[in-house]
Amino acid sequence: MRTYINPNQDTLDALCKRPEIKTADLEADVRDILSLVKSGGDPALRKLVLELDQADIRELKVSPAEIKAAQEQVSPELAAAIQIAAANIEKFHRSQMIAEERVETSPGVFCWRKSVPIEKIGIYIPGGSAPLFSTILMLGIPAQLALCDTIILCTPPDKQGNIHPAILYTANLLRIKNIYKAGGAQAIAAMAYGTETIPRVYKIFGPGNQYVTKAKTLLQLEGLAIDIPAGPSEVLIIADQYADPDFIAADLLSQAEHGADSQVILLSNSSELITQTLQALEQQLESLPRKEIAAAALSNSFALQLDSISACFDFSNNYAPEHLILALEKPEYYAGQIKNAGSVFLGKYACESAGDYASGTNHTLPTNGFARSHSGVSVDSFCKKITFQTINKTGIRHIGPVIETMAEAESLIAHKNAVSIRLKKLNL
Amino acid sequence: MRTYINPNQDTLDALCKRPEIKTADLEADVRDILSLVKSGGDPALRKLVLELDQADIRELKVSPAEIKAAQEQVSPELAAAIQIAAANIEKFHRSQMIAEERVETSPGVFCWRKSVPIEKIGIYIPGGSAPLFSTILMLGIPAQLALCDTIILCTPPDKQGNIHPAILYTANLLRIKNIYKAGGAQAIAAMAYGTETIPRVYKIFGPGNQYVTKAKTLLQLEGLAIDIPAGPSEVLIIADQYADPDFIAADLLSQAEHGADSQVILLSNSSELITQTLQALEQQLESLPRKEIAAAALSNSFALQLDSISACFDFSNNYAPEHLILALEKPEYYAGQIKNAGSVFLGKYACESAGDYASGTNHTLPTNGFARSHSGVSVDSFCKKITFQTINKTGIRHIGPVIETMAEAESLIAHKNAVSIRLKKLNL
Repeated sequence: MRTYINPNQDTLDALCKRPEIKTADLEADVRDILSLVKSGGDPALRKLVLELDQADIRELKVSPAEIKAAQEQVSPELAAAIQIAAANIEKFHRSQMIAEERVETSPGVFCWRKSVPIEKIGIYIPGGSAPLFSTILMLGIPAQLALCDTIILCTPPDKQGNIHPAILYTANLLRIKNIYKAGGAQAIAAMAYGTETIPRVYKIFGPGNQYVTKAKTLLQLEGLAIDIPAGPSEVLIIADQYADPDFIAADLLSQAEHGADSQVILLSNSSELITQTLQALEQQLESLPRKEIAAAALSNSFALQLDSISACFDFSNNYAPEHLILALEKPEYYAGQIKNAGSVFLGKYACESAGDYASGTNHTLPTNGFARSHSGVSVDSFCKKITFQTINKTGIRHIGPVIETMAEAESLIAHKNAVSIRLKKLNL
Repeated sequence: MRTYINPNQDTLDALCKRPEIKTADLEADVRDILSLVKSGGDPALRKLVLELDQADIRELKVSPAEIKAAQEQVSPELAAAIQIAAANIEKFHRSQMIAEERVETSPGVFCWRKSVPIEKIGIYIPGGSAPLFSTILMLGIPAQLALCDTIILCTPPDKQGNIHPAILYTANLLRIKNIYKAGGAQAIAAMAYGTETIPRVYKIFGPGNQYVTKAKTLLQLEGLAIDIPAGPSEVLIIADQYADPDFIAADLLSQAEHGADSQVILLSNSSELITQTLQALEQQLESLPRKEIAAAALSNSFALQLDSISACFDFSNNYAPEHLILALEKPEYYAGQIKNAGSVFLGKYACESAGDYASGTNHTLPTNGFARSHSGVSVDSFCKKITFQTINKTGIRHIGPVIETMAEAESLIAHKNAVSIRLKKLNL
């Protein structure tokens, strides 16, 4: 992990740029997968699952017996932890659901908005080395709160065709019963187009590898809605001399272990804090099972010493980190300075892994600078807000002439007529 | 305008599909324009404005003198209308800004969300036959309410290099001073990449022709945020025997005059209402200045007679119209049945043009079935919601073990360590 001390603005700007990820060579492969699933349905999907997920699946849908069996296979301790996390996530996401008032904008003109669930949504949960059941909580709970009608889940099976019990346990806890054994771009294609077994959905959520990301992007061009554009995960920590170097090192590593392409950044006005943190980092790294991944991520990462905490916020706002930790003596004092970030952790005990699992906030967040313009996932992500209006006689008399004047100035005479014909009948 | 009477489900499904728009042949042209502006900046932009907007522009930025002159060129009547519309739009959009509470999800664990403005946004206003100043209200007012730092506007000049006074008047009313003379894909490229004169923005809003739409889509793949995916405008009216055929005909025409590719749909359980409406439509069409455009749109459009109002709602929910007018005796009774729509107009006097101009709701809405998964533009479109959390000693003691258990089950040991190291120091 390199350290920069008060570099010039050009270097600062360069440090804000994410490493470019080349994905052009994937595109042809992913397009092939999409078109195979679109035209071939279940048989094509089964063939791709055999070829790419390396599992020979007869029944794509997880059976009730498999779900039932998983309940016994999860330790009581893990089950209890998942339930506590679920309760916190539900409590926080429920607080986001605020009904808006009906507004009388002019006498007799009433406007309001209503959140209406997206009817059909799909959740993708990656496979690989670990079962990411926590992401089911992060996507399934707001989907349930939003009252989405159809909630389906795709996740790759292991080579024996099984899904990890923690995934089935968590899905079942959220009453998600439609779980399908398929991974990668083929799973995304199945949810976007629908197959005989897998229903088509309008919006797909969830992380994944480059194939999954590319499939979501390509399907977005065909009208599919997706949660957020994806990129490697990242954390930025702003720390002052009062911060605990051991805690900061642990937080940097918890992000670094996500993937070799993760980026972790430490900003401070204290050279001592930086030195101590880097020392602690070396020590803690040694004992990690995912040491190699974390070390690779650290090689893309850096510490930056700047003259003031205010300069640190300038950099952070420019970088727009997914996770921002304020390891500062008075973090709340600085919270108002944040212009761009996905999720912010204030103070000594708000470690990023709290937000990843159990504090209640969502862990599906904008990476890659998308925090400049995108929010993380929330209940809003599973709804659309429909506007409504009703206008009585007083209302149309009041705003009718305004509409007539404006429509005429825009040369849209049929727009004007729609009002004139009403005003005329009212005056008969 | 064809009429279908109780067709079978296959026909109903086919009627829900939008006509496919071929844009592949545009893509190469638009890519060229994007790359010219990206590498060539202002000079390249000026050249493209000369070539494509057919205006020879020395100063891309509209001068204060031009803005001042426009104030005199707008009639007092139009100025007053714009101000009343602006006040209504502001009132409704302000009602959308509801601060969320800080939630204690577990003892000592506090989570909240805060709306933070997108710092830099761009508004595109098309040129062509009419000055669409109303769209400046619809995009500029929520941007101002959100407190976006940089708000810029691009619009094509006429061949003399001038911008319509109504556009300059409306922009000035909203204190938008950074107005640039450029149209089409070249304007979108300039705002996305930035040039010497035009600042780069993070999100671009506004309608446009196929070049504009394609440019926004392509730039979205490079990380630009856009308002909503675009398609031709549309209205669907559900009417019963109590509706006024003259009003409905006028509403259908007000949508049809937008463009030859617009689609207007009438659903009813009353054959008499359909017949009378189609007659009124023919009559009203005759006197429209944009008669040919409206007639072309009507040729893509249809009336659909179904047995019940409930069946009409099933069709409408499947179609997911941009605008939905309920010309029903008791529209509010049915409002709860709406699953997919952009903006809904209830009752006799809530004509679509009210929402287009002056009632207060936004007219930038999801078309082309995107209402299944997207909202129209609102103050939210100009913000991102950042989550915050703070955890005290009690809090980490409470949820720490939950995080440890879950992180371990996901094989993310560094995530676990970030908690363990804190719990350990607390227990020293």
